[in-house]
Amino acid sequence: MSPAERPLYLDHNATTPVDPEVVDAMLPYLREEFGNPSSGHPYGKRARAALEDARAKVAALIGAKAGDILFTSGGTEANNLAIRGTTEARAERRHVLTSVIEHPATKLPCDTLEWRGWRVTWLPVDADGRVRMEDAARALDAAGADTALVTLMHANNETGVLQPVAEIAAHAHRHGATVHTDAAQSVGKVPVDVDALGVDLLTLVGHKLRAPKGVGALYVRAGTPLRPFVLGGGQERGLRPGTENVPYAVALGTACELARVRLARGTSALVALRERLWERLRAEVPGLALNGHSTERLPNTLNVRFPGVRGSDVLAAAPEVAASTGSACHEGGESASPVLRAMGLPEAEALGAVRLSLGPDTTSEQVDRAAAVLAAAWRRVAGR
Amino acid sequence: MSPAERPLYLDHNATTPVDPEVVDAMLPYLREEFGNPSSGHPYGKRARAALEDARAKVAALIGAKAGDILFTSGGTEANNLAIRGTTEARAERRHVLTSVIEHPATKLPCDTLEWRGWRVTWLPVDADGRVRMEDAARALDAAGADTALVTLMHANNETGVLQPVAEIAAHAHRHGATVHTDAAQSVGKVPVDVDALGVDLLTLVGHKLRAPKGVGALYVRAGTPLRPFVLGGGQERGLRPGTENVPYAVALGTACELARVRLARGTSALVALRERLWERLRAEVPGLALNGHSTERLPNTLNVRFPGVRGSDVLAAAPEVAASTGSACHEGGESASPVLRAMGLPEAEALGAVRLSLGPDTTSEQVDRAAAVLAAAWRRVAGR
Repeated sequence: MSPAERPLYLDHNATTPVDPEVVDAMLPYLREEFGNPSSGHPYGKRARAALEDARAKVAALIGAKAGDILFTSGGTEANNLAIRGTTEARAERRHVLTSVIEHPATKLPCDTLEWRGWRVTWLPVDADGRVRMEDAARALDAAGADTALVTLMHANNETGVLQPVAEIAAHAHRHGATVHTDAAQSVGKVPVDVDALGVDLLTLVGHKLRAPKGVGALYVRAGTPLRPFVLGGGQERGLRPGTENVPYAVALGTACELARVRLARGTSALVALRERLWERLRAEVPGLALNGHSTERLPNTLNVRFPGVRGSDVLAAAPEVAASTGSACHEGGESASPVLRAMGLPEAEALGAVRLSLGPDTTSEQVDRAAAVLAAAWRRVAGR
Repeated sequence: MSPAERPLYLDHNATTPVDPEVVDAMLPYLREEFGNPSSGHPYGKRARAALEDARAKVAALIGAKAGDILFTSGGTEANNLAIRGTTEARAERRHVLTSVIEHPATKLPCDTLEWRGWRVTWLPVDADGRVRMEDAARALDAAGADTALVTLMHANNETGVLQPVAEIAAHAHRHGATVHTDAAQSVGKVPVDVDALGVDLLTLVGHKLRAPKGVGALYVRAGTPLRPFVLGGGQERGLRPGTENVPYAVALGTACELARVRLARGTSALVALRERLWERLRAEVPGLALNGHSTERLPNTLNVRFPGVRGSDVLAAAPEVAASTGSACHEGGESASPVLRAMGLPEAEALGAVRLSLGPDTTSEQVDRAAAVLAAAWRRVAGR
């Protein structure tokens, strides 16, 4: 695509551009520094040093120790390792607590546990898209010492709504449960600290924070019972075997370091930009509604529903904007986002959703243009 | 490392340098072409097209169809998917056939099956490091219709010895078993064709063929029963969920295309270089022995044992050469390679091993220098 052909990119929750500094940092490890970290010769030792330096940088972003970070191939694998690894290690307990709005990489492993005879509690969400602390407490108290694992996303990918992970983690620990959070969407967008959250396991994902697709990490608090999921050699303390992806580990470390610097400057500018988009859109689209909590939300995420039309039709009529709906297309037609349906929205209303997710490079000019383009598209589709 | 500090790299079986053309091909997908292949907008569509183009290139190297290739995070994950995915899908059978010289990424999943009540036959190897067809046939005939899976490496990582995969696959199919080969070391070094081998599943690994560490593929013949191992979204037909690593898929596709061109030129030059290394070394080191079959072997691999010394001591005395031993260091000392022990070598002799693995960039000058350096190191260590 030539720069002129490029739609305005408002889909940062799907994937982010890779930061140019991240590309620069990883390139030497695709070129002269190609060693296998397990090799004893200088090529290997230099690769090992880069890997461990990257590990420390990832840890620093989330207030962890370097030794608590395992590199994975992404968020899906990290969630699988967290969920399967914990439940295998704690199989004397038979209950898992999760929610109805989790990513498939959490939902499917929990489905499998259910088929295998585990009891899984699927917490509902309120109209704002948040799990309720009292529902979680009730489920945890009822299960007593039977809860092996609580796995709850930190921020929802579609609405950006932040979940009450810290409160639920504190309660879960009173019952001796292990607590995992899928922080794929929040790490790099808001300050995330494993001690403040009080979690034992945390998933983070490179391509949501300006590193490439295909790398992630699982934070594992020292002492957390965990069995390996992928089996093989002794890499990553035997908990994640396979020759280490040094270039992408370096990329993730660099992206985490850049995110730290960015977050230290605060998120108010991004929030202001998002609110500007929201205000412009709703000035032009009467009846436009917000999906998700008005404040307990990622600074970059705006999920709206257009009245009387499908979000997919609005986006099709606005090719200058790259964004997404949470709906799924299949042979039978289009079905609405399960996340929005779980918030109590009727199918027809949920099909009106469009997710607009901003990035650190998004400008106010882009926001203004996107609002104008989307409003015009809505008018065409709605016949106004 | 400055170029002058770089040891001669004779450790291509551990990992290869990334081909500069591979880096160039993947770079656009780390820069402007950053889309998520699941996105419906142009960023996503362009990423999707690159992914599918790469898939076709991987398939072409091994005589497969593009639709039969699943991208993975590497060989370890591909082996886990093959072994766990097949045995879960065919759990009415309870026998697996493998060998004692497999990589840990095969051995550990098979160990786990054994703990879970499966019967696993571990085929021995002869003094040349090869599994015997008659042992395999006997085990398969004894198991009858009970063998779910045969998993046998195509070439051993330490000795380079090629295994009789095609013969065993043909026999296994008569009993209705699924056949997997871990071709991590052979793909890109010798011609590999899934139909000629007659396998249903084949693992190939990027960083063994001049693509980066952290990408691989599993070939799955159409109709092969397979359950997903990692659970999550619908990527890779639901068989390998997780946002696709587009840059590395492009890298693997490019590396496979380059390997095709290289293999079309034949492997005799590389064999001649390896034999030159062998002849020079044994002229200077009386009693030097070859580990592994003299001809049924990867063109690039020379595993030798130095008489009366440890291979690790020879390498420590030869810092100008980067190579490896198959031994493992641990607190209790050093233990010899299980692969060499399985070939009947006594511990002391097996500890004399050094694996020298060449690459397409290796020159005759490098080989001559390596031979001289290693022989001098041996003389120092052996006190000659």
